[in-house]
Amino acid sequence: MKKIKVGVLGATGMVGQRFIELLHNHPWFEISEVGASERSAGKRYDEAVEGRWKADTPIPEGIADLELKLCKPDLDCKLVFGAMDRSIAGPIEEEFASSGYAVVTNSKNHRMVDDVPLLIPEVNSEHLEILKKQKERFGDGLIVTNPNCSTIGMVLALAPLHEQFGLSKIMVTTMQAVSGAGYPGVPSLDVLDNVLPNIGGEEEKMETESLKILGNLENNQFSNAKIKISADCNRVAVKDGHLESISIELNEKATREQLVESFRNFNPLKELNLPTAPNPPIVLRDEEDRPQPRQDRNEGNGMAAVIGRVRECNVLDWKLNALSHNTIRGAAGASILNAELLKAKGYLK
Amino acid sequence: MKKIKVGVLGATGMVGQRFIELLHNHPWFEISEVGASERSAGKRYDEAVEGRWKADTPIPEGIADLELKLCKPDLDCKLVFGAMDRSIAGPIEEEFASSGYAVVTNSKNHRMVDDVPLLIPEVNSEHLEILKKQKERFGDGLIVTNPNCSTIGMVLALAPLHEQFGLSKIMVTTMQAVSGAGYPGVPSLDVLDNVLPNIGGEEEKMETESLKILGNLENNQFSNAKIKISADCNRVAVKDGHLESISIELNEKATREQLVESFRNFNPLKELNLPTAPNPPIVLRDEEDRPQPRQDRNEGNGMAAVIGRVRECNVLDWKLNALSHNTIRGAAGASILNAELLKAKGYLK
Amino acid sequence: MKKIKVGVLGATGMVGQRFIELLHNHPWFEISEVGASERSAGKRYDEAVEGRWKADTPIPEGIADLELKLCKPDLDCKLVFGAMDRSIAGPIEEEFASSGYAVVTNSKNHRMVDDVPLLIPEVNSEHLEILKKQKERFGDGLIVTNPNCSTIGMVLALAPLHEQFGLSKIMVTTMQAVSGAGYPGVPSLDVLDNVLPNIGGEEEKMETESLKILGNLENNQFSNAKIKISADCNRVAVKDGHLESISIELNEKATREQLVESFRNFNPLKELNLPTAPNPPIVLRDEEDRPQPRQDRNEGNGMAAVIGRVRECNVLDWKLNALSHNTIRGAAGASILNAELLKAKGYLK
Amino acid sequence: MKKIKVGVLGATGMVGQRFIELLHNHPWFEISEVGASERSAGKRYDEAVEGRWKADTPIPEGIADLELKLCKPDLDCKLVFGAMDRSIAGPIEEEFASSGYAVVTNSKNHRMVDDVPLLIPEVNSEHLEILKKQKERFGDGLIVTNPNCSTIGMVLALAPLHEQFGLSKIMVTTMQAVSGAGYPGVPSLDVLDNVLPNIGGEEEKMETESLKILGNLENNQFSNAKIKISADCNRVAVKDGHLESISIELNEKATREQLVESFRNFNPLKELNLPTAPNPPIVLRDEEDRPQPRQDRNEGNGMAAVIGRVRECNVLDWKLNALSHNTIRGAAGASILNAELLKAKGYLK
Repeated sequence: MKKIKVGVLGATGMVGQRFIELLHNHPWFEISEVGASERSAGKRYDEAVEGRWKADTPIPEGIADLELKLCKPDLDCKLVFGAMDRSIAGPIEEEFASSGYAVVTNSKNHRMVDDVPLLIPEVNSEHLEILKKQKERFGDGLIVTNPNCSTIGMVLALAPLHEQFGLSKIMVTTMQAVSGAGYPGVPSLDVLDNVLPNIGGEEEKMETESLKILGNLENNQFSNAKIKISADCNRVAVKDGHLESISIELNEKATREQLVESFRNFNPLKELNLPTAPNPPIVLRDEEDRPQPRQDRNEGNGMAAVIGRVRECNVLDWKLNALSHNTIRGAAGASILNAELLKAKGYLK
Repeated sequence: MKKIKVGVLGATGMVGQRFIELLHNHPWFEISEVGASERSAGKRYDEAVEGRWKADTPIPEGIADLELKLCKPDLDCKLVFGAMDRSIAGPIEEEFASSGYAVVTNSKNHRMVDDVPLLIPEVNSEHLEILKKQKERFGDGLIVTNPNCSTIGMVLALAPLHEQFGLSKIMVTTMQAVSGAGYPGVPSLDVLDNVLPNIGGEEEKMETESLKILGNLENNQFSNAKIKISADCNRVAVKDGHLESISIELNEKATREQLVESFRNFNPLKELNLPTAPNPPIVLRDEEDRPQPRQDRNEGNGMAAVIGRVRECNVLDWKLNALSHNTIRGAAGASILNAELLKAKGYLK
Repeated sequence: MKKIKVGVLGATGMVGQRFIELLHNHPWFEISEVGASERSAGKRYDEAVEGRWKADTPIPEGIADLELKLCKPDLDCKLVFGAMDRSIAGPIEEEFASSGYAVVTNSKNHRMVDDVPLLIPEVNSEHLEILKKQKERFGDGLIVTNPNCSTIGMVLALAPLHEQFGLSKIMVTTMQAVSGAGYPGVPSLDVLDNVLPNIGGEEEKMETESLKILGNLENNQFSNAKIKISADCNRVAVKDGHLESISIELNEKATREQLVESFRNFNPLKELNLPTAPNPPIVLRDEEDRPQPRQDRNEGNGMAAVIGRVRECNVLDWKLNALSHNTIRGAAGASILNAELLKAKGYLK
Repeated sequence: MKKIKVGVLGATGMVGQRFIELLHNHPWFEISEVGASERSAGKRYDEAVEGRWKADTPIPEGIADLELKLCKPDLDCKLVFGAMDRSIAGPIEEEFASSGYAVVTNSKNHRMVDDVPLLIPEVNSEHLEILKKQKERFGDGLIVTNPNCSTIGMVLALAPLHEQFGLSKIMVTTMQAVSGAGYPGVPSLDVLDNVLPNIGGEEEKMETESLKILGNLENNQFSNAKIKISADCNRVAVKDGHLESISIELNEKATREQLVESFRNFNPLKELNLPTAPNPPIVLRDEEDRPQPRQDRNEGNGMAAVIGRVRECNVLDWKLNALSHNTIRGAAGASILNAELLKAKGYLK
């Protein structure tokens, strides 16, 4: 199979770097273009990120010497991954879609737009139906988004329970990694011997994005899931991996055994054999002290949700702790899995 | 006024060190005795803690050269502060009380015992009435306990609301400092670039101790408060200061202004002028990013509860973040304030 | 005694904040003016630093509501402390000096200038003689500087040895705190689970500033000390306190006892009773595991150099470890002590 | 090729875990036995390390269910890797060697013994000649050791210079990772917002082991290299990777270009194609801010020494910074590479 040429828009930032890392040696996609702002355009990729490449592995050969282009729809590829800052991503992504590109983006700008799927492949792949409506705007182009990093971990972890028993209430407190804020991002003076008790806009994202993802699509219209969600988001001194303390109430009562079975049976993408899909997508740990960010974030190559401490809650029904890798499952990996689903479902020509 | 001679049992551990630090230059108390295990008894205090003194200030003069004694009730003092490990504290504390000593302890052993007050002076000073019943066991001696460090911060922060509106449900997720586990305590490999999603026994303490403290004492009998409490406890890379993400439901509905007023008016110990009592006991911050452990833990000399981000909750009624210093307000300082209340109320002869 | 009115230029940055903290309740000085850039001028101090006040204690009353002024020489004070960024400090400081102000600055701009003392009061107070020459430029005004934070700790620690035995070679490796880079300063992604093996310009400062401080002033001319200095500077995950691993060669051989005696006898400012002068300026620890940043940085209210592990070196003569608080002894406190010396020596009218 | 059965003695500790991780899927060796103390013997491996498995990846299948044996020479293998605590390793390793096993060990006990090679394959493979003399003691068995983790990084980094120009003096200050101390190892209270300025015995190891490795073997006698070495060892808040600040003096003067060429040409094992040998063994970085522990420790699968900032020294000749992974290159990986060299050279029957 000939690989599909892809571009990465915003390729020099933290999420852009993850795209580079994860797309390197991808069996279906190959990076032909890297896009950046005017400040970096024209430079070699490795020059532009010098001193700012924060991955644990070196810049892949074949990428290091690519020339950065402006984020204009004249790139030699048919699919672009979006890692641009939200301050600029909106109109650029629309311009690419209007020009016939498939835009698969991590940026927040189009997540809550009426004709745009907010996609987690294991959870709401049927939402891709909305792309029919999107055709009215973009013709051959399209925009598909993935949720915020803290949302994606929570929703993936709870999806099997919602499917089987119905969620009615979610209370969540996050302990989020610093990489989620990009680079330079969180000053060391803010998290050294400290916790920041707020992350601007994050709680609202968790409380709203989740409802769209878990909601229904009928007659080309999204309707929110009927779940009450309350979120508190904190920044801790962890490099990667968002840990979430979650309590839930279910519509239909269940035993702990039923919950466990529900988690263990959940693998809706199994038959599709998508290269980036974790198998299984949810890893349930039995130990009393798991999941932990440093030890569990790479589960499923950083694409799995790891959960543990499933136990009764005195206020709602159940409590559990969930972990997911914020820049892989929660950002670049999420978009790549979305693109793989698009390919498998025939949305990429 | 002549100072009251006091002893510190378990004086070499982390909490014992805090007792030493906080009692140094205390206007009412002076340390005459320091007690330790057989391994350390007979040594000078500074020799016994060499390499293990973890305070930011040096060992106070006058303490450094004290000889450590065994924890036997033949010490030259009338009040002993308890900082012993729970594996040994129980019978030793009873032995001291039976011998006529006032035992004011941070150890957990007697917290839930029928005739022992579990005391936060600003919250349930009326529980000292139970000491009448305790006389049957101990005669002139007595035992008074303070709650667990994570419990004390939460209960102090919520006390004004419970008093005025009545709490019916509490959901809490903690991010706790490593000093709470003593020394050597938490291995660096466990919290460097990591969070531990469980602290053995801590959740149960929060869920049970709170009910006794906020409950009633009638006819020499404690009855639990009727509150549903659900706790999730985590260890983060912070030296001192437990941060808590709290959601609550109230019996009587209230506006945000009423809550704020309730917090601001709360100062029940004001007239007593206890040396260690924070004034005010609750500090309400308006900023969107407070309280923070490193920046707010020393508020009120480490004795205040600092709260912030009071806002509506989509699942229960209200959300807020609370912070308190775990080894001061949550341990040694709590006991010292308890002792001051005992003195002010005439329980120390 | 009526207090001397002082201003702080660059009052909102990290070093500026330390000036505010340390000058609050100073027995000789009182802050009458706070200066800042155009962006902040006109605002109240507390508004301008909101979310950026990084001290462990709140903004002092009396300062919080001061109005920030532009850094122009029309301030109501006779002495200004300099905490401005080096990109702008140079001409502004000269303007103040030319207008008759005493400028006591932590900024690097004038440190190596021919007629400016680079002062550590315990080490080279005789360098103040150069102020006579400075009069030619500034008349009644003056500029006095203190060294870089890493230099000051090293030179103070080694000064008694240089005085008594003569230093010929110094090899130093630093492990420096993040507060030295200001706020936002060092990104958390750079020091979490990491060390940065270089700090731009720092090594050169240590290698050059030290030679001026330890050099001679004769006939209004500075001549460098004849010492070979080689420095390697690293950034570690510590909030405050620079730790330095030092090896030295002496001109005159000495025994370990002589070195220890030299350190212990060193207290040249004792008779002056300067309020900020640490007494003693050098604290020698005997333990095998000291000094440590978190535990020793506040020695002498953050103004002492703490040294330990004095031992033979296989390559040069002696090795030792030294620690000093980088934003107190190494910045704001250094300037304040300089101002106190100026006052005591009659240089402030 | 049939794989050689190997055992791991001390398989449950931190270094033992690294052996498990690195030997899993090794092309030449397969783990047939895991040995532990009496406390763990008889348990399944995964049970014994529950809550103490600190690798970032799960326990390999095929190992998890192995039964731990006592460390007695009745194991079904011909080669054992040593990861036992030095308090017990000495006699056990001799017992195995006397019983005909090849003992390839990371423990320090036999490093400085007269007939035992202290081996870094790229540096002193000719020292294996001493095994002829060892035959007198052990017959078919043998003991081969690798150096301490901080020594190995330094000596590997400097080996090409010593070979080509001759080292006469080395001054080194280390910033070492916490994993070097095992688990539980370094308390979080010791390195959070802190540095420990000493590591017991480490400096002496660097100063003595290096001389044996770089020394000569003639007539079955080791003679130390004639190098003056002075070390200062510090513990910092880093998980893995020892960073070293090094200054050196050479016997034969060289230009910077010559040094760089020396580093780049160094690859003495290239022809042997050992599976664990890094290629190249020394990675030279040009950036001003490298090497860094978190970003460079995995270079060469954790087996390379990464160096940077090669520059002139004002006191000796040259300065540089070196980094190596302390539990891979500095421990388990070192032993495995030693075993591979033994195999390639025909010492394993």
